[in-house]
Amino acid sequence: MLEKLEQISKNLRYWIIKSTTKAGSGHLTSSLSAVELMSVLFFSGILKYDISNPKDISNDKIIFSKGHAAPLLYSLFALAGGIKFNELLTLREFGSVLEGHPSVRLPFVDAATGSLGQGLSVGVGMALNAKYLDKLDYKTYVLLGDGETEEGQIWEACQIASTYNLNNLIAIVDINTFEQSTKTIHGGEILRYKEKFQAFGWDTYILDDGHDINKVLKTFNSIDFNINHPKVILASTIKGAGVSFIENKMEWHSKTLSEEDSIKAINELDIKDLNSVNTVFEIEKPDIIQTSQYVKKEASSFKLNTELFSLNLNEKLATKNVVGDILNKLGSDNEDLVVLDAGVDNSTSTQKFKEKYPDRFFQMYISEQNMVSTAVGLSKVGKIPFVSTFGAFFTRSFDQIRMASYSKANIKLIGAYSGTSLGKDGFSQMALEDISMMRSVRDSVILYPSDALSTLKALELALNFNGLVYIKTTREPTNNVNTDLTNINIGDHILLRDLENPKVTIISSGITLHESLIAHDKLLEQDINTQVIDLFTIKPLDSVKLLKSIKSTKILVVEDHHSEGGIFEAVTSSLINNNLSFYSLSVKKMPQSGEPSELLAYEEIDSNAIIRKVLEL
Amino acid sequence: MLEKLEQISKNLRYWIIKSTTKAGSGHLTSSLSAVELMSVLFFSGILKYDISNPKDISNDKIIFSKGHAAPLLYSLFALAGGIKFNELLTLREFGSVLEGHPSVRLPFVDAATGSLGQGLSVGVGMALNAKYLDKLDYKTYVLLGDGETEEGQIWEACQIASTYNLNNLIAIVDINTFEQSTKTIHGGEILRYKEKFQAFGWDTYILDDGHDINKVLKTFNSIDFNINHPKVILASTIKGAGVSFIENKMEWHSKTLSEEDSIKAINELDIKDLNSVNTVFEIEKPDIIQTSQYVKKEASSFKLNTELFSLNLNEKLATKNVVGDILNKLGSDNEDLVVLDAGVDNSTSTQKFKEKYPDRFFQMYISEQNMVSTAVGLSKVGKIPFVSTFGAFFTRSFDQIRMASYSKANIKLIGAYSGTSLGKDGFSQMALEDISMMRSVRDSVILYPSDALSTLKALELALNFNGLVYIKTTREPTNNVNTDLTNINIGDHILLRDLENPKVTIISSGITLHESLIAHDKLLEQDINTQVIDLFTIKPLDSVKLLKSIKSTKILVVEDHHSEGGIFEAVTSSLINNNLSFYSLSVKKMPQSGEPSELLAYEEIDSNAIIRKVLEL
Repeated sequence: MLEKLEQISKNLRYWIIKSTTKAGSGHLTSSLSAVELMSVLFFSGILKYDISNPKDISNDKIIFSKGHAAPLLYSLFALAGGIKFNELLTLREFGSVLEGHPSVRLPFVDAATGSLGQGLSVGVGMALNAKYLDKLDYKTYVLLGDGETEEGQIWEACQIASTYNLNNLIAIVDINTFEQSTKTIHGGEILRYKEKFQAFGWDTYILDDGHDINKVLKTFNSIDFNINHPKVILASTIKGAGVSFIENKMEWHSKTLSEEDSIKAINELDIKDLNSVNTVFEIEKPDIIQTSQYVKKEASSFKLNTELFSLNLNEKLATKNVVGDILNKLGSDNEDLVVLDAGVDNSTSTQKFKEKYPDRFFQMYISEQNMVSTAVGLSKVGKIPFVSTFGAFFTRSFDQIRMASYSKANIKLIGAYSGTSLGKDGFSQMALEDISMMRSVRDSVILYPSDALSTLKALELALNFNGLVYIKTTREPTNNVNTDLTNINIGDHILLRDLENPKVTIISSGITLHESLIAHDKLLEQDINTQVIDLFTIKPLDSVKLLKSIKSTKILVVEDHHSEGGIFEAVTSSLINNNLSFYSLSVKKMPQSGEPSELLAYEEIDSNAIIRKVLEL
Repeated sequence: MLEKLEQISKNLRYWIIKSTTKAGSGHLTSSLSAVELMSVLFFSGILKYDISNPKDISNDKIIFSKGHAAPLLYSLFALAGGIKFNELLTLREFGSVLEGHPSVRLPFVDAATGSLGQGLSVGVGMALNAKYLDKLDYKTYVLLGDGETEEGQIWEACQIASTYNLNNLIAIVDINTFEQSTKTIHGGEILRYKEKFQAFGWDTYILDDGHDINKVLKTFNSIDFNINHPKVILASTIKGAGVSFIENKMEWHSKTLSEEDSIKAINELDIKDLNSVNTVFEIEKPDIIQTSQYVKKEASSFKLNTELFSLNLNEKLATKNVVGDILNKLGSDNEDLVVLDAGVDNSTSTQKFKEKYPDRFFQMYISEQNMVSTAVGLSKVGKIPFVSTFGAFFTRSFDQIRMASYSKANIKLIGAYSGTSLGKDGFSQMALEDISMMRSVRDSVILYPSDALSTLKALELALNFNGLVYIKTTREPTNNVNTDLTNINIGDHILLRDLENPKVTIISSGITLHESLIAHDKLLEQDINTQVIDLFTIKPLDSVKLLKSIKSTKILVVEDHHSEGGIFEAVTSSLINNNLSFYSLSVKKMPQSGEPSELLAYEEIDSNAIIRKVLEL
């Protein structure tokens, strides 16, 4: 075994050097420091993984949270037979799935990494699933860099992992003491890491030489899974290990070798027979191979029967308040649906789900970054997470949402209490940037329901859509303005007042839609015809349908959001170059505390402001 | 003393009850739990603060990171004579400076809070200033909630505070065991907090009864400032303390009393003479009152003498690489200029500043959230922080940037390596959403320099502007296309190819500006006249000047960024309803690793794509 692992480590080094030298960039030294840690994990029977069936749910999960060690990751899967050796030499080339940082284009990668500090949270999601949902034996391994533990999200993940007793989650910290431009905050003081992880409720295993295969083996085998804590191996390593002239030298971060130096480095490896670098080694398979694949099945086409539904559409309801009832209904027929909330479930109404389905509700406490990445992890093992907090606080997880999109995660974010209309709590709680944020994310869908029925529709569509969906809800109770949304889909809008010869089309969503309808009615009394569009979908917009509804009228967009990146710009981008005139009412003044109606008036997005603007036009 | 502090505590409770009952909302119970902690801090001579001179630099600093305890904060300053008692009854009313969460409209508030977990980082900035820059004796006190410590940013702040030995920073954790919808993650297990803070290098002081004034006093007085660690008081408290029927009841979070119950509650306070609630108590003043105010002086008008500058404008330079040299030059004449970087200073070139001005460079390690809020703190004591990391990773601090804007912070963010043109590192490192993010933030300025000279100009303008500025830089070396930017200001663009009768105006910035110029030249060979605008300012745009430059041509916007919320939408919003036609080339395909030129071609934002598009028009 020792001999085999030594050979494997040499071969990994060979391919790491070869591939990064060929690429002319890539993290050579950060890959080399974790070679023995990973060769032992992969090839001594610890990791259980069916290389021919990478998405089988029974496989142990492996996440390189230090995504820049991608050359090591690719070399590992090449040695295991999953990637052709010569393909390793396409590292970082345009078109190659072996990107600079791990991409889900490679079947062995479940979640994209490369923005540090997110992978542990993804692992939390996978481990939660194994322990509480699918109740399977797979373990989740996460490779972390030491510098990476400086990210606060790591400690958010740690606190959740210990709170949920995730003894099936194993972090391995590759403590090579250097980050990009400096020694890490603790350098080689391995006990500082031990104290931190212990304080956060983890079992720690110190490994004083991460390059001694015997010690690495012993450490992995000493892990006591009977104790209900998450596990961390704190491994002292050497950046650039195995290539004498770059070891422990900060200036070699993210640098690669010249062709000449690479030959020198490979010579140092002392590989007896260079043909042996093409040897394939087996990763031990899981004892049981499930038939189920944890890639998401096709989009479902579940439909809520609104007639059976308990909501009274004749009363005023806040969209944020009906979410809980709807999730309960959706959850009763969809066992994969899980809900996460960041300690505000009584406000966002997901508390109802917590009460009805405690096993499928995960309290994520006040840590939004971890919450989003945990949802990515859950989605990657087949669950459909609905993730809930105030819209404003999703700005805290923008980077995580960005990476979720690149991971092709099937998650649904519900941002409650959005807009100035939340009132007295003031600006810190108002989401006035969330539409802009979510629009700029690749492949996102944004739905902005304005009443109970359209909230129901939004959640149903979100459940059926395979991808990243953001649903924006508001605090104020509003009338139900929609009656039949049977044929409404993602991309659609709803033409609410379809008068003849309208002069102006007022486009809005949420609270300001109701202001628009009041304005419409009052203007009608003055014989001024307007029509009102409920812009149920903010992204993607169906410009053909929208253009048809507009009927060459002037367009007034009203939104409880900053105009930059918001609904106005979504509409203008969608309808540009059609000889139309566009006008905007949006949040422009410094928001403050007050009654919702006062704030809408102050920001000039209430019915009076709309009437003034239409008369002006 | 004890008697006085008891009276003060009663009066504080009186006003907290009165003001929240009047407002009908507000965090009554979360204010009550910290009454004794704060009455002792404010009125026993511990806090040194000149209430008549709240922005004096010598004052101790006080930050309510648990901003929802605003009713307590306002009552404290009312008791100290800074706010009229009857003004307290305007709490949360429209127009009142006493907002739901603290706003800088109130002179006693240095930084807006209300999004949890940010105030400790702001305190780190103020404490860094006292210890390393101004070398003053003021101390910085931060009131934290226990639920709030679930935010990862708290631990980022903790690690930086201990790394910089901030023994002048004192956190007080109000451990009332409840957050909004649940018990906090550790409930009343105070030792769990002790372990965490100790592991992060803090001196901890356990206070087993945060309502026993004697014990509170003793705890504050036992703090040993000779030990070079930051300090934390871990205080066990009762949510709703002092009002028997709401104590320790989760359902009372964020709830207020009925008029009737408020009378019952006030009766419980047992205040002998109700007139005494209007008594003013003195906060002890600092020993020395400086004359200097720590509000930022007027915008400066510093100008770099480019002739004296060492940059060789004849060679290809990457905008991200000239930043360091420019900061060195700006820093030599501006002692308030400080630089923060998140462990990537060798890539962003701020390493040069680190080497030249080590006392004004703060290594913030890989923790972007804390970095931004720390900069807010530094700015609030008169420093001008330039904050540097990859543009992509500023998405991690979106919430902090949002709050920085509400705090009116004078900070400059420099986002390096932006766009697909960074190449082989791949999507995780590419900032394709940063313009959208920064545009949606209130009062932000966005400058996007395209060459060395305009980078110099951007940094100079940022220094002179009092507010939030984002500067976007790129990795690839480019030619200098600008020759004289003497008269360029924020809001301006630069018309680079001013031909007669142009058919199309190509608007761009950064890398794609250079592609646009190549396209221009090649099109000219085919006798197709285009003109090129270097959109140096992305926000705010001067639409009048821009419209003048456009000369009724068709407009093609080219950007290395998603089109949503990006430059295209900035331009169209600015020029809408002028009978112009707009066309967009932007990042639309899933980005991947590759050579910059390959990626620009793949995304169809290179010179060939521009030529194709112009020919099509």
